[in-house]
Amino acid sequence: MTKPRSEFELIERHFARPPRDPAVRVGVGDDAAVLAPTPGTELVVSVDMLVEGRHFFAGTDPQRLGHKTLAVNLSDLAAMGATPRFALLAGALPDSDDAWLTAFRAGFRALAERYAVELVGGDTTRGPRNLCVTIIGEVPTGTAILRRGAQPGDDVYVSGTLGDAALAVAALSGEVVLSNGDLAHAQRRLESPEPRIELGERLRGIASAALDVSDGLTGDLGHILECSRVGATIEVRALPRSATLDAMLEGRTHDIALRCLLAGGDDYELCFTAPQRHRIALAGLAQALALPLGRIGAIDAIPGLRVRDGNELLSALPRAFDHFAE
Amino acid sequence: MTKPRSEFELIERHFARPPRDPAVRVGVGDDAAVLAPTPGTELVVSVDMLVEGRHFFAGTDPQRLGHKTLAVNLSDLAAMGATPRFALLAGALPDSDDAWLTAFRAGFRALAERYAVELVGGDTTRGPRNLCVTIIGEVPTGTAILRRGAQPGDDVYVSGTLGDAALAVAALSGEVVLSNGDLAHAQRRLESPEPRIELGERLRGIASAALDVSDGLTGDLGHILECSRVGATIEVRALPRSATLDAMLEGRTHDIALRCLLAGGDDYELCFTAPQRHRIALAGLAQALALPLGRIGAIDAIPGLRVRDGNELLSALPRAFDHFAE
Repeated sequence: MTKPRSEFELIERHFARPPRDPAVRVGVGDDAAVLAPTPGTELVVSVDMLVEGRHFFAGTDPQRLGHKTLAVNLSDLAAMGATPRFALLAGALPDSDDAWLTAFRAGFRALAERYAVELVGGDTTRGPRNLCVTIIGEVPTGTAILRRGAQPGDDVYVSGTLGDAALAVAALSGEVVLSNGDLAHAQRRLESPEPRIELGERLRGIASAALDVSDGLTGDLGHILECSRVGATIEVRALPRSATLDAMLEGRTHDIALRCLLAGGDDYELCFTAPQRHRIALAGLAQALALPLGRIGAIDAIPGLRVRDGNELLSALPRAFDHFAE
Repeated sequence: MTKPRSEFELIERHFARPPRDPAVRVGVGDDAAVLAPTPGTELVVSVDMLVEGRHFFAGTDPQRLGHKTLAVNLSDLAAMGATPRFALLAGALPDSDDAWLTAFRAGFRALAERYAVELVGGDTTRGPRNLCVTIIGEVPTGTAILRRGAQPGDDVYVSGTLGDAALAVAALSGEVVLSNGDLAHAQRRLESPEPRIELGERLRGIASAALDVSDGLTGDLGHILECSRVGATIEVRALPRSATLDAMLEGRTHDIALRCLLAGGDDYELCFTAPQRHRIALAGLAQALALPLGRIGAIDAIPGLRVRDGNELLSALPRAFDHFAE
């Protein structure tokens, strides 16, 4: 294996290419990138850091990791209703393994190209594996979807299905046994989440509040409730879920399924609220995007989140994943 | 010591505050920040990652580290002639040590406030200590100072003094012995570099090319030469230097001094080129900023960098610091 002579070459070789977007006046290769923002828009920016052993297992397929590293950031933009434009990637790597980096790049770039995201900056260094992406998107001025707009009477929705990524973690750690097919499906959800970019863009003017479910539904929905100073009641049976989790919910692994659905992170679906008058528009949008939009409950004026499981009101909610919790 | 209950609280407690800049429509606390760019400007963005044990020693004073973490990014903007506006900070920390984080924040925030930089995003996670800052600045459209504009006949300049940070590393690793006062000075240069923001802004329209000296003068100046497809000849005796390095250059530690001056990283001074007609303007600028601007050589049309040490033309240049070099 040939090794690059220098950090500079490493970045150049792996990530530089002439930018296709004329808004990129200067891309990778100077002290900083120079970008022309679109008149009439606001910038939407976010940063995420992924650490080996915490956010992904050592030995994770590098191509899937490249995808996921960008996907989790795109998901933040989706939650704001923003159109992604530019990304910056900083990475610490334990060695300069060409095969690993080539595969990582392929996964990162395939997703970037799908959404016309230009990589405009990078920094590579040696260290315990750590990947940090900053994403820059745009929205027409004043149209970003915030966490603080939910109103009593609004419906609460979740896109796609919940809990599959957490189910994969439970299976990989031996807590639950899945068939090979079910494990493969869950693991794909964990390792290759799909950012809901089109959905976010189409929710501008419809959703009153939104975020992406990265740490678990109850914790994340809780942020909307706190920011909006409202409460909500949701129904476990209304939570959109895979056939596997649906079956588990009826059997002796009911509690694990419940934890995956309510507290499982890493699904990167959107949770959003919308006034009831948009129900027909949202049904049409779900059809247009071929993406289920599950109505899971409603916003009310009583602070806090109430979760119903059939006739039972859950007294304790499974805890969301929390990096610094004791 | 109380520990924060959650990652979310940790970020909120340490870094959130109501933004002072009305351009920050939404700051920390949503999925992403929403920012209003200034009409008539372009964005200038850069990312830097600092890893413990590589970019800073374990046990480095956290307040100085907070300063440096932001300073190295501001330095990239200075090299582009940009005015800093917004920063995003992602950090992996081995534990949630409140005292460490409070000191780190104090250093970061003091520098941010000096340049009216708003912290608009953050991500905190547990892991080997790693700090990643993305900086966003602005320049009037078309005025960014790039690496590729140097022309034969241009003068080559360096701001401040070179080599002090590398001298501190040499002293701390036992390679050279310094007096307490000299060590303290060098260590301050290593741990608390001053980004040359005002200089960068004032160089718009004057400098033909610029970058910041982060990896060592010869390597960094080499980037200007490659990008501009020119060469240069510089003089060791013209390199701006501290009294300590000046004395070493005359004595038996000449070679160490030479390496610090030519290949020492982490000084974060600006190296720039400018047409000769700007000499008087630059002398006035040095006086106005109370910052020496040393003219160290000239650009010519012969590819490569030539370094003169008195009457001698150096045949081999000390190598710049390189994270992935073998």
